[in-house]
Amino acid sequence: MKRPLILISNDDGIQAPGVHRLIDFIADFADIVCVCPDGPRSGQSMAITVAAPLRVHRLPDYMGAAMYAASGTPVDCVKLAWHTILDRRPDLVISGINHGSNAAVNVVYSGTMGAAFEGCAFGVPSIGFSLTSHSMDADFEPCRPFVTSIVRGVLESGLPEGVCLNVNIPCCTPAPTVMRLVRGCRGNWSDEYVEYRDPSGHPFYMLAGKFRNQEPENPDTDQYCLDHGQVSVVPVSLDRTAPIPEVLPYLPWLK
Amino acid sequence: MKRPLILISNDDGIQAPGVHRLIDFIADFADIVCVCPDGPRSGQSMAITVAAPLRVHRLPDYMGAAMYAASGTPVDCVKLAWHTILDRRPDLVISGINHGSNAAVNVVYSGTMGAAFEGCAFGVPSIGFSLTSHSMDADFEPCRPFVTSIVRGVLESGLPEGVCLNVNIPCCTPAPTVMRLVRGCRGNWSDEYVEYRDPSGHPFYMLAGKFRNQEPENPDTDQYCLDHGQVSVVPVSLDRTAPIPEVLPYLPWLK
Repeated sequence: MKRPLILISNDDGIQAPGVHRLIDFIADFADIVCVCPDGPRSGQSMAITVAAPLRVHRLPDYMGAAMYAASGTPVDCVKLAWHTILDRRPDLVISGINHGSNAAVNVVYSGTMGAAFEGCAFGVPSIGFSLTSHSMDADFEPCRPFVTSIVRGVLESGLPEGVCLNVNIPCCTPAPTVMRLVRGCRGNWSDEYVEYRDPSGHPFYMLAGKFRNQEPENPDTDQYCLDHGQVSVVPVSLDRTAPIPEVLPYLPWLK
Repeated sequence: MKRPLILISNDDGIQAPGVHRLIDFIADFADIVCVCPDGPRSGQSMAITVAAPLRVHRLPDYMGAAMYAASGTPVDCVKLAWHTILDRRPDLVISGINHGSNAAVNVVYSGTMGAAFEGCAFGVPSIGFSLTSHSMDADFEPCRPFVTSIVRGVLESGLPEGVCLNVNIPCCTPAPTVMRLVRGCRGNWSDEYVEYRDPSGHPFYMLAGKFRNQEPENPDTDQYCLDHGQVSVVPVSLDRTAPIPEVLPYLPWLK
């Protein structure tokens, strides 16, 4: 049987430990092309580079994977891989393993999930993986059994058109043993900026903030899983259209 | 009765004609704070600026609206307005009027819709408006009756939590007279890059591409509306979770 072809990207950049650990986990059963940003692109969502040149550089192979660094966003990486590198349709697109959680509302800002959604836009089953630690020294080993079983499972069973998976893995002791299918948690960020003064006395701002879980007791959410040492699997849609019957009562002005 | 407070942003930048026309259309019945990027930010989706300073500059008022230019993305503009400028909760967030269509899959890449989704994340009814012309000389006047009636309607009736509106207006002759509630059209981009060679002979790429409508005969889509001279109104969700019962059959590996 032919080995599957897997396209990998991320938003932490080609040098991030997370993407190398991901390759370690799956290199024995897949051919891999890895196209990542040439530096960190956290928070890039599904941003694309418009009206500016993009470059792609080949790097030395890693564990048999063909490695490329691109100058754009995570979505640019997937598009560039598709149009300028891949010689056949990949069987799977994987993004990550991200350094930091992409649970709850973070999914909308995440460059990691941006790349997964882009794989989905090309009609390929796609998965984003994240570990809830921003440390460059984080131990990714507890991710291994979940990553391999999810990747093998999706290669075998596929995913519905327009749906990809947002998988978050808690960085905790003891290592997680439970994985659950849940939905994205409702919550919001507050106190989002720290204000500074430059040497001339003019203000500037840097993003910070605290996540506020709006439903901490609800066990059906990804944030609950992570808070309880469980791996969360959330199916997410590329299509943004809201259920129209639920919206209609609000639109009496639209006759 | 107190005049409503409306926060305006866009992705074409504070100098774009589209945002000035939007203010012209609504300034007689609303107090306006306008915080836009200090230059073009098309295709920025819901990108946020992480680990870099952001600045905000006050500009001269326009038609009574308080005008600000910010150094970040459209989502940054909404967050900065919320945390550093607004002295009360806005009644509405409006993004646009964008120069160019945000119908179909474009909604996921759009910085205009990024700002609208961010308004939605703050729990405020939010609307993105787009005109299907990229020209700086485009005539926005045909947008006026639709913009004013939608803005007045949403101020009156609100929107469901977590849902905002993606409104696209065709730039055509005769001016549109019909507005319809539809869903985002299925389609994809192809031939996305033009390859160039730099003076040293190394390749670089710039985004181009053609949109392929996967359901051109279906009248229930935004792209159909635009192709037939109608205004499209698509309700879009901030929540990304896909309907779990539809996904379950694909996940036999998730026991």
